[in-house]
Amino acid sequence: MNILDIIENKKVGKELSDEEIEYFVQNYTNGKITDYQAAALIMAICINGMTQDEILALTMSMANSGDILDLSDISENIVDKHSTGGVGDKITLIVAPIVAALGIPVAKMSGRGLGITGGTADKLESIPGYNINISIDEFKQNIKDIGISLITQTMNLAPADKKIYALRDTISCTNSMPLIASSIMSKKIAAGAGSIVLDVTCGSGAFMNTKEDAKKLAKLMALIGKLAKRETVCVLTDMNEPLGYSVGNTVEVVEAIHALKGNMAEDVKDVVLNMCIQMMNLSGLYPNALDNKYKVMEVIENGKAFEKFRELVIRQGGDVSYIDNPEKFEKAPIIMPVLSEEDGYVEELDAGKVGKAGLELGIGRKQKEDPIDYRVGLIFNKKIGDEVEKGDVLAYIHANSPEKAMECVERIKDAYKIGDRKITKKNIIEII
Amino acid sequence: MNILDIIENKKVGKELSDEEIEYFVQNYTNGKITDYQAAALIMAICINGMTQDEILALTMSMANSGDILDLSDISENIVDKHSTGGVGDKITLIVAPIVAALGIPVAKMSGRGLGITGGTADKLESIPGYNINISIDEFKQNIKDIGISLITQTMNLAPADKKIYALRDTISCTNSMPLIASSIMSKKIAAGAGSIVLDVTCGSGAFMNTKEDAKKLAKLMALIGKLAKRETVCVLTDMNEPLGYSVGNTVEVVEAIHALKGNMAEDVKDVVLNMCIQMMNLSGLYPNALDNKYKVMEVIENGKAFEKFRELVIRQGGDVSYIDNPEKFEKAPIIMPVLSEEDGYVEELDAGKVGKAGLELGIGRKQKEDPIDYRVGLIFNKKIGDEVEKGDVLAYIHANSPEKAMECVERIKDAYKIGDRKITKKNIIEII
Repeated sequence: MNILDIIENKKVGKELSDEEIEYFVQNYTNGKITDYQAAALIMAICINGMTQDEILALTMSMANSGDILDLSDISENIVDKHSTGGVGDKITLIVAPIVAALGIPVAKMSGRGLGITGGTADKLESIPGYNINISIDEFKQNIKDIGISLITQTMNLAPADKKIYALRDTISCTNSMPLIASSIMSKKIAAGAGSIVLDVTCGSGAFMNTKEDAKKLAKLMALIGKLAKRETVCVLTDMNEPLGYSVGNTVEVVEAIHALKGNMAEDVKDVVLNMCIQMMNLSGLYPNALDNKYKVMEVIENGKAFEKFRELVIRQGGDVSYIDNPEKFEKAPIIMPVLSEEDGYVEELDAGKVGKAGLELGIGRKQKEDPIDYRVGLIFNKKIGDEVEKGDVLAYIHANSPEKAMECVERIKDAYKIGDRKITKKNIIEII
Repeated sequence: MNILDIIENKKVGKELSDEEIEYFVQNYTNGKITDYQAAALIMAICINGMTQDEILALTMSMANSGDILDLSDISENIVDKHSTGGVGDKITLIVAPIVAALGIPVAKMSGRGLGITGGTADKLESIPGYNINISIDEFKQNIKDIGISLITQTMNLAPADKKIYALRDTISCTNSMPLIASSIMSKKIAAGAGSIVLDVTCGSGAFMNTKEDAKKLAKLMALIGKLAKRETVCVLTDMNEPLGYSVGNTVEVVEAIHALKGNMAEDVKDVVLNMCIQMMNLSGLYPNALDNKYKVMEVIENGKAFEKFRELVIRQGGDVSYIDNPEKFEKAPIIMPVLSEEDGYVEELDAGKVGKAGLELGIGRKQKEDPIDYRVGLIFNKKIGDEVEKGDVLAYIHANSPEKAMECVERIKDAYKIGDRKITKKNIIEII
């Protein structure tokens, strides 16, 4: 077998065999296949596509290219949760303590933010003292002891995916559906999940801009999950508007604290409830599906979900006084309001534009090595459907310099569209 | 402008602008665009193709990426000649002295052989003393003085093509028509030709295996030539059987010497006459096209063509006693016959198989740096259409070791097909 024949086969549109895909993944990971040969093959895949069998083979080869986390000694009921990324997406911070409080073990490795989409790892690190880099043994021990641990990816999981992902970024091959699906699923499989609930976002603040594309991707990942014997459910959610009232790091932790105490924005509540219900279904611990929603509301109302979050923060070295008193979080030096220039209703709050504004403010990273400022962020006072009067505060900008704040005001103004119609938005598009 | 957008455009099948193509060629040549980015773009071109405008832009950008040879001070009538490559293709060695004897200046840079196709530069170097690396000034002076010079590519002609060509070889993108056409034409344009006659070969011993593909390529190159204001005529020739009676280096020089004295194999004669006639037409020096064939025969019969070849060899430092007495060429230590095992007619002599047999013998190079043995080669006694009896010599193998000779016998036997039918072959397929 040689790489030239494999490239030729995909170039002319043939289906690659499992052995050919395995040969490519192995030899690209170990450096025997060059970047330019991989680039040629990836481009041919982007243009000519892949069959389901090929996508499954690619997923499994990438999953098996590094360590595989084995969680079977902890529980049979571990359900993983993943989002394809969004603006203001603090769902993990809320869902994880809720399901842990419901007795479903949560063993989650979260990524850092890149581009306009934030990362849970960065948000957790904005809690003073919180250690997201604990060892795998400590990770497992925490799950055994308190039923939850949230860390960043410390093991050598799916290194083939890491290499191929980085290459795709430099050759305009990021938006290929077979490559996105296999990338996400290979990481989830390597991370040891028995079953997976995926939050597939769509809209201006997501990778998939249209419902059709998001649905296709969701179906593809559900199918790969099935074939790989990891039951997978996808919740399609809207990402045309940022999720919840805040975008940033500490500001989103604060929103999550309020949410865990029952004070949730409507769109956040919608997504949280649906994610929790699906995770409960997959866990096998909650056979009466109709009760699930009430059980979620119960652990929020009786304080068990919030208490679980406190336990997690304490266990991983975080200063829990910040969780008990969110006012303690250091604030950005500049807080500047964005005022409405007209009367009407908010018809649009473009998540893509908000994401870019946040990036310029220092919430996220343009390059992998960029530092981020945990304090900066955006707080939205008015969201889609809200009535506004001229002079009302639409949003507050938390910035670390007056120049950045001023520039951000313009960007946020541009993200809002005020009109005559009162729009009702659907946050959950479909469950697949 | 940036390379990611250019890759994206070609990936989704858009036409690239002249500026985008120029940007790619310039920045890949100077190393600002990486090999993997170029590989992704080249693959997208291979799959999605290029429009005529794009091919012309690519050709001109590559031609302008290095030195451009200016021959306008020597003559307005310079006609270049090029073959897309074949097995036993010694046509340049015969055609160049003939047209020079007819008063058409010949300024030709020839390549070395790679793979199964031989190179005129290697064949000339097999003449003791012949210097193919003279300076451009000497090259021009020779043309002024004796009307002919044959050298190898010494200038920095079309370096972009060189880099892209080498990359294509490693990513299974050699057989793309837009890339083949622009590669050939960019070199010809950089080499200063006013007009060009192309020998487009097709068959098992050529890049284009079918007539349809060869015809498409020919039409494409003729069109590029027209658009680039270099009148271009293509002679489509058969390359299913090796050309003439010999395949190798000194053996082909010897065949060329005999041909220039009027002793030409039928297929060689066909191609030589047609190439000469087209070059005469394009030169503008022979307005009565109907006479051209007789004029070619005349300079062969009156010895002027052979004398021009002697002049060339002397002028470039070669030992002319080898030309006057070809028996002087050092012979390979082993000469082994291949005998027919049956009665009948030669129905096939597969040029692709012969080429590979020659490669193993040491005629050509598998890798660019491989040394070649000028002495080794193949002499064919029987060609397509010839009657044979069991025990007749089909061919002689000139080898430098008994093992290689033995192995070659089997390969050559496999290249022959003896049957009942007497086949008549057409060497010139079409003039485009």
